[in-house]
Amino acid sequence: MKVEGRNAVRELILNGSTIDKVLIQNNLHDNVIEEIIALLKSKKIRFQFVAQNILNNESVTKHHQGVIAFTSDFKYSTTEDILNFAKEKNEDPFILILDGIEDPHNLGSIIRVCECLGVHGIIIEKTRACQVNETVIKTSAGATSYVKVARVANINNEIEKLKKQNVWVYACELGGDDLTKTNLKGAVAIVIGSEGRGTGKLTLKLCDGIVTIPQFGKINSLNASVATGIVLYEVRKQRS
Amino acid sequence: MKVEGRNAVRELILNGSTIDKVLIQNNLHDNVIEEIIALLKSKKIRFQFVAQNILNNESVTKHHQGVIAFTSDFKYSTTEDILNFAKEKNEDPFILILDGIEDPHNLGSIIRVCECLGVHGIIIEKTRACQVNETVIKTSAGATSYVKVARVANINNEIEKLKKQNVWVYACELGGDDLTKTNLKGAVAIVIGSEGRGTGKLTLKLCDGIVTIPQFGKINSLNASVATGIVLYEVRKQRS
Repeated sequence: MKVEGRNAVRELILNGSTIDKVLIQNNLHDNVIEEIIALLKSKKIRFQFVAQNILNNESVTKHHQGVIAFTSDFKYSTTEDILNFAKEKNEDPFILILDGIEDPHNLGSIIRVCECLGVHGIIIEKTRACQVNETVIKTSAGATSYVKVARVANINNEIEKLKKQNVWVYACELGGDDLTKTNLKGAVAIVIGSEGRGTGKLTLKLCDGIVTIPQFGKINSLNASVATGIVLYEVRKQRS
Repeated sequence: MKVEGRNAVRELILNGSTIDKVLIQNNLHDNVIEEIIALLKSKKIRFQFVAQNILNNESVTKHHQGVIAFTSDFKYSTTEDILNFAKEKNEDPFILILDGIEDPHNLGSIIRVCECLGVHGIIIEKTRACQVNETVIKTSAGATSYVKVARVANINNEIEKLKKQNVWVYACELGGDDLTKTNLKGAVAIVIGSEGRGTGKLTLKLCDGIVTIPQFGKINSLNASVATGIVLYEVRKQRS
């Protein structure tokens, strides 16, 4: 697959991923491009200067920023990988479960905030949901190089698995307990519903609780990535 | 200007805005479209059923969802309007200042979270920044109908004006005080920098303080609307 954009390519190199080759626009000589070239040289990764129109033709996202890397497909993790990662770090699991996020910009933004706030991993469904594609990688600003994403057949099975491991699972939806007043310490997974439909009924039933972001307006509708950021921040704050 | 998308058009009607006419795609008969038609009839607003290709041609955002309203241009407020609005509500001012947000999706998302969290108004600059255009209105899901946006020549002048009114001004940037441990009660304005450049140096100097979202990753770069949501949530939580 193609990894496009300066931050995404830089983090891909820094992360030690296997890269087949990198195309760089031949008339760019700014600091970030110079940094990427130096990294490519030091890691002995093949790269080539090409005209802008060649990058335009290769680009999937149409926002390549002068650099495209060719690499193997995104490597998904499993729920067990995520739990093991938390164990290795000697931390209570801190997991995000996405019930059908469809917009790649939202998914990219969500992966980015997970990286910042130290989430151990994200669980997404194989069908009816956006996968980690070129646009997600570009929007995540490179965070896909560091955040574990488990792709599962059915999130409800994973929720049951997590509950058996003593992870408390909370959905973020309207009509629940006030987020600011809910105890979210310890091993926690947060479920975020899709942009249009929210969290599925069966999934909601499986959750240990529902938390709601306090709202003071007339519309009270938040973008999925902003809502995710707020809930994860609250969890993070309580863990510290 | 054109207001496009179901939520945006519904809120425009509910808000009592002057609407010249509304075009509705002629083969849609779901609940939301029926609700919009009922609202248009009850408010005696002119509307017309048209083929999808006519809406496609009229659409600026290319995501009209079967409905476009024609209305006057977005009515900007002033900083004084925002302060007066807080006074009317008998609340300490809670203001957001944007130092050059350029992406309309970010601005739309930011207006949406401001509506939810009860921010009294947003201050943006006339130049070098995204204005409230069709894409912003669509992305805001109708929140532009309720949130005051002041468009000013220079945000630094407005910051000085706010400080004279005893509003404490904080920028959200790296290297500042821990957001979770900063007292943000009382009259507060938050400054968010642009996606690429962050907050300007002169603006930072004018601020009473800098707050930083605690970060635990390797990249530690948040999308502007997600960062805004997190900081505004923290302020909101402290006010309650």
